[in-house]
Amino acid sequence: MPQPLYVVKIGGNVIDNAEACTRFLKSFAGLAAKSILVHGGGKVATQMASRLQIETQMVDGRRITDKAMLDVVTMVYGGLVNKNLVAQLQSYGCNAIGLTGADGGIIRSVKRPVKTIDYGYVGDIEEVDDRQIEALLASSLIPVIAPLTYSAEGLLLNTNADTMASATAVAMAQTAEVKLIYCFEKKGVLTDVEDDNSVIASLTPETYAHYLDSGVINKGMIPKLDNAFAALEQGVSQVIICHADELDQAIAGEAGTTLSLV
Amino acid sequence: MPQPLYVVKIGGNVIDNAEACTRFLKSFAGLAAKSILVHGGGKVATQMASRLQIETQMVDGRRITDKAMLDVVTMVYGGLVNKNLVAQLQSYGCNAIGLTGADGGIIRSVKRPVKTIDYGYVGDIEEVDDRQIEALLASSLIPVIAPLTYSAEGLLLNTNADTMASATAVAMAQTAEVKLIYCFEKKGVLTDVEDDNSVIASLTPETYAHYLDSGVINKGMIPKLDNAFAALEQGVSQVIICHADELDQAIAGEAGTTLSLV
Repeated sequence: MPQPLYVVKIGGNVIDNAEACTRFLKSFAGLAAKSILVHGGGKVATQMASRLQIETQMVDGRRITDKAMLDVVTMVYGGLVNKNLVAQLQSYGCNAIGLTGADGGIIRSVKRPVKTIDYGYVGDIEEVDDRQIEALLASSLIPVIAPLTYSAEGLLLNTNADTMASATAVAMAQTAEVKLIYCFEKKGVLTDVEDDNSVIASLTPETYAHYLDSGVINKGMIPKLDNAFAALEQGVSQVIICHADELDQAIAGEAGTTLSLV
Repeated sequence: MPQPLYVVKIGGNVIDNAEACTRFLKSFAGLAAKSILVHGGGKVATQMASRLQIETQMVDGRRITDKAMLDVVTMVYGGLVNKNLVAQLQSYGCNAIGLTGADGGIIRSVKRPVKTIDYGYVGDIEEVDDRQIEALLASSLIPVIAPLTYSAEGLLLNTNADTMASATAVAMAQTAEVKLIYCFEKKGVLTDVEDDNSVIASLTPETYAHYLDSGVINKGMIPKLDNAFAALEQGVSQVIICHADELDQAIAGEAGTTLSLV
């Protein structure tokens, strides 16, 4: 029987709210199983760039990570956000270790090839070193992963946190029973974005197709859900999408949206 | 026979010079023994504070770390500097893992008590978790440690990199044969600061006392040397002070200043 492992992703909106973040970290620190935390960036990087008078580069409506912005996200995600999460978790008795993909070489990527748009210093994940992550977990460490990866050439690369969480979950699913949990500021996948009580309790590929056809699932949620179902197809046992305040209830099946293949 | 371990500290002046830093990292990556790198901050934090219009607080000529400056050093030391060193080392085949004292709880400190001066968010080291560091080394990881520690209350604290290196070396000396190596922009301890060829090849407590009496050792070097001899008295086998370009030669006993008790 493989060991259970939680891969939990916490969104930037929660990071930005000190009280919500503290509530979340306390429940994360109390999880019974082995766990990994992947965090988004939040608004601090944008605010910091603005204070440093670095303009956000946009091409065709897409955000570009130039060298100046890469340095900002390295400072803010890899330093300020990551290390404060780690220090806070340590004070709750959780032996957190803050990492980017470069640390221990855990998540290697390739600088996104230029097709029509040059996204700059953005990484597309190539490989997750599940054995290195397993070695950290075996030392009773709790990895806290910032949304940065690295290339074989030694570049740091800005990387989507949702994708890092699902790639990590898939890699770890080779040897563990992995639950991938996306925590954010909504109560789950909603049929009405205005109504926080319209949570869809469970989704399978069939019911998801039905909701897509009827157009009730919010467009912004579709890439996240496609990604989640892809993770299930690659061996992740369960994906949960829930409010950051309801981590324990969601794991108990009493809150959030649970995705499974059947 | 205990295993050899190198604890190498690299100074801020080397960090600030990209070419010198690259040369150093290549030789560090090639070290045969297990090793730990502790890095200073360099001028980037001061430059960043200036760009963010954060004034350096001084009291009685001493630099104070207020909350705004703590955030800057967390970003710069824990993020920008540390993660770039790690990514570069990874590209040289060195399985580096970037850490602050908070990560894995490796170096815990206490916020410096206020006597006459309130230094702000500055940490005085209380405990190094040598077993946690040993577990990382046993996973073939090379810790790269930024000059930040944490308190039991979950605060990050600005901490002197020289002190972090010596405290780490002393803690590891319980189970390993530790060489503590300070790399900087001079060729060693000099009898004439203007003459880079005036390196003192070796120092013992007796010869050190002699040099102190004759006044030939530069004042700025005295706290570093006192600290180094204290580390030797607490079990570190050897302390070397050398130029960052001469790491290999210094380890071979062909460059720098070697300190020992006899």
